[in-house]
Amino acid sequence: MPMLEDPIRTQRSSDAPLFGGIEGGGTKFVCVIGRGPDDLVAEERIPTTTPQATLSNTVEFFRTAAARVGTLAAIGVGSFGPVDLHEGSPTWGFITTTPKPGWEHTDVAGRLKRELGVPVAFDTDVNAAALGEARWGAARGLDSFVYLTVGTGIGGGGLLGGRPMHGLVHPEMGHVLLPRDRAADPFPGMCPFHGDCLEGLASGPALLARWGQSAESLPEGHPAWALEAHYLALAVVNFVCALSPQRIILGGGVMDQAHLFPLIRREVVALLNGYLRAGEILDRIDTYIVPPGLGNRSGRLGALAMAELLVRA
Amino acid sequence: MPMLEDPIRTQRSSDAPLFGGIEGGGTKFVCVIGRGPDDLVAEERIPTTTPQATLSNTVEFFRTAAARVGTLAAIGVGSFGPVDLHEGSPTWGFITTTPKPGWEHTDVAGRLKRELGVPVAFDTDVNAAALGEARWGAARGLDSFVYLTVGTGIGGGGLLGGRPMHGLVHPEMGHVLLPRDRAADPFPGMCPFHGDCLEGLASGPALLARWGQSAESLPEGHPAWALEAHYLALAVVNFVCALSPQRIILGGGVMDQAHLFPLIRREVVALLNGYLRAGEILDRIDTYIVPPGLGNRSGRLGALAMAELLVRA
Repeated sequence: MPMLEDPIRTQRSSDAPLFGGIEGGGTKFVCVIGRGPDDLVAEERIPTTTPQATLSNTVEFFRTAAARVGTLAAIGVGSFGPVDLHEGSPTWGFITTTPKPGWEHTDVAGRLKRELGVPVAFDTDVNAAALGEARWGAARGLDSFVYLTVGTGIGGGGLLGGRPMHGLVHPEMGHVLLPRDRAADPFPGMCPFHGDCLEGLASGPALLARWGQSAESLPEGHPAWALEAHYLALAVVNFVCALSPQRIILGGGVMDQAHLFPLIRREVVALLNGYLRAGEILDRIDTYIVPPGLGNRSGRLGALAMAELLVRA
Repeated sequence: MPMLEDPIRTQRSSDAPLFGGIEGGGTKFVCVIGRGPDDLVAEERIPTTTPQATLSNTVEFFRTAAARVGTLAAIGVGSFGPVDLHEGSPTWGFITTTPKPGWEHTDVAGRLKRELGVPVAFDTDVNAAALGEARWGAARGLDSFVYLTVGTGIGGGGLLGGRPMHGLVHPEMGHVLLPRDRAADPFPGMCPFHGDCLEGLASGPALLARWGQSAESLPEGHPAWALEAHYLALAVVNFVCALSPQRIILGGGVMDQAHLFPLIRREVVALLNGYLRAGEILDRIDTYIVPPGLGNRSGRLGALAMAELLVRA
């Protein structure tokens, strides 16, 4: 994947350009300035309240911090969505039809660009995280992989043929529909649109609603986890068949339960049943389905990588 | 999609280069020579028997036809699979672990290249068909779309970000797992690997096994069709959520039943339930889920387009 290979880490002098990264989430905007995971010079968490306050505070952080640490060459934004990613669209860089109150039709990238006077790259939060993993994490050297985050919601992104997944809108991997045994599991799911899609069955809030306990408080041997692994494995199988990724990274708060990984891997292999004769799946599933290499920092670091790519493009 | 835009059709003189295309299927190899859908100068159908006989006859066709109609600049092959698409792999251009007797580990592209002395492009049959649709058919101007063929088997391919879908192996879209109401439909499916995956439920042979009649002989109002449309709609929804394509083309023998299209479109819209706020789905579903623009010629013409791309790359 040529576009990610040229390593900026070989020139970590103070002459190397500084980039800004924003992980724009529903509860906070994490803003960073730096050159990579081992070379961050500033970081701040700004609560996500109204668009006006949040974006003002974000602009203010970059303006004042840059005055101290140096000029930024570009800023990357990985945003909650849905977002408009169509270059040339009048609403490129907007959060569009989000259910989050007050944030519908909010210009994010354009405003940052105007008020900070730097080039701005814009993508979904999960595509940003995927790019971070490609640049510095568990997807280095790969040009086709999926990053799935399992937390308050479930979302997916990734690179295919070296390019971030865009298309009609952007993937909404949390909303795939899966086989279910309703006799064994009568939980109706809680997606307001689809009921028992993947997100409706397996997000953090779905775990809480079904079992009355949060992911953090459910003990390791609890039957919740076998069922959670089952649904995630079915989704992984479908992404493998639909996309043929070279690796699947599973991140997000729910996947902090590391004991889920062996359960998911075993069931993916069983469900595929030898059909895909790839050593990565048959012999090396432990390195095929993996946690993020950057832990919970994939999003903000990926936003930084987006800024870097924008300048180098 | 810059790689497909430069139209060779503007120079249909006899000076324009000639290309070869091979649609390598399990029952026949359809070989064409020409410059596009309206400019084919030779075509032959060679039965798929042993690799030795089939490939010898294929080489012979191109050798003798080229002597009459002119030298070929390159040949493209869209092959049944699974195939090895990894450039640099020692088995690039091979059919690999196919269940088709005698065809396991068959060098296709390398042999054609050696014996015909021309550059050879190689991809899956469905990626070739997708490329044909991008070049001359229902996907002109799009850089991200899915082509799904529903026939003896079910397979999918397409372009994402302007590039054919490769990845770990290549997509195996026929093997996604779908929600089922086993009380309403107790058919166990007939995929030897997965039972009731999409192909196991909705391929031509599955229709025949379930209803005792082939797709061609089942009348339009038969309950088979509502169920068929239901499973195909579930799969389309999953591909839309996983890939965010700009269009979905449904081809193959089963989709010759044009009355399936309105059933599938209606159910896709109902299943997505307004979640994806794209006009293409909400307002223009008739142009979002469509038959191939090249009918049953997408594969052979796509192979021709692959040859053309190889020379122009």
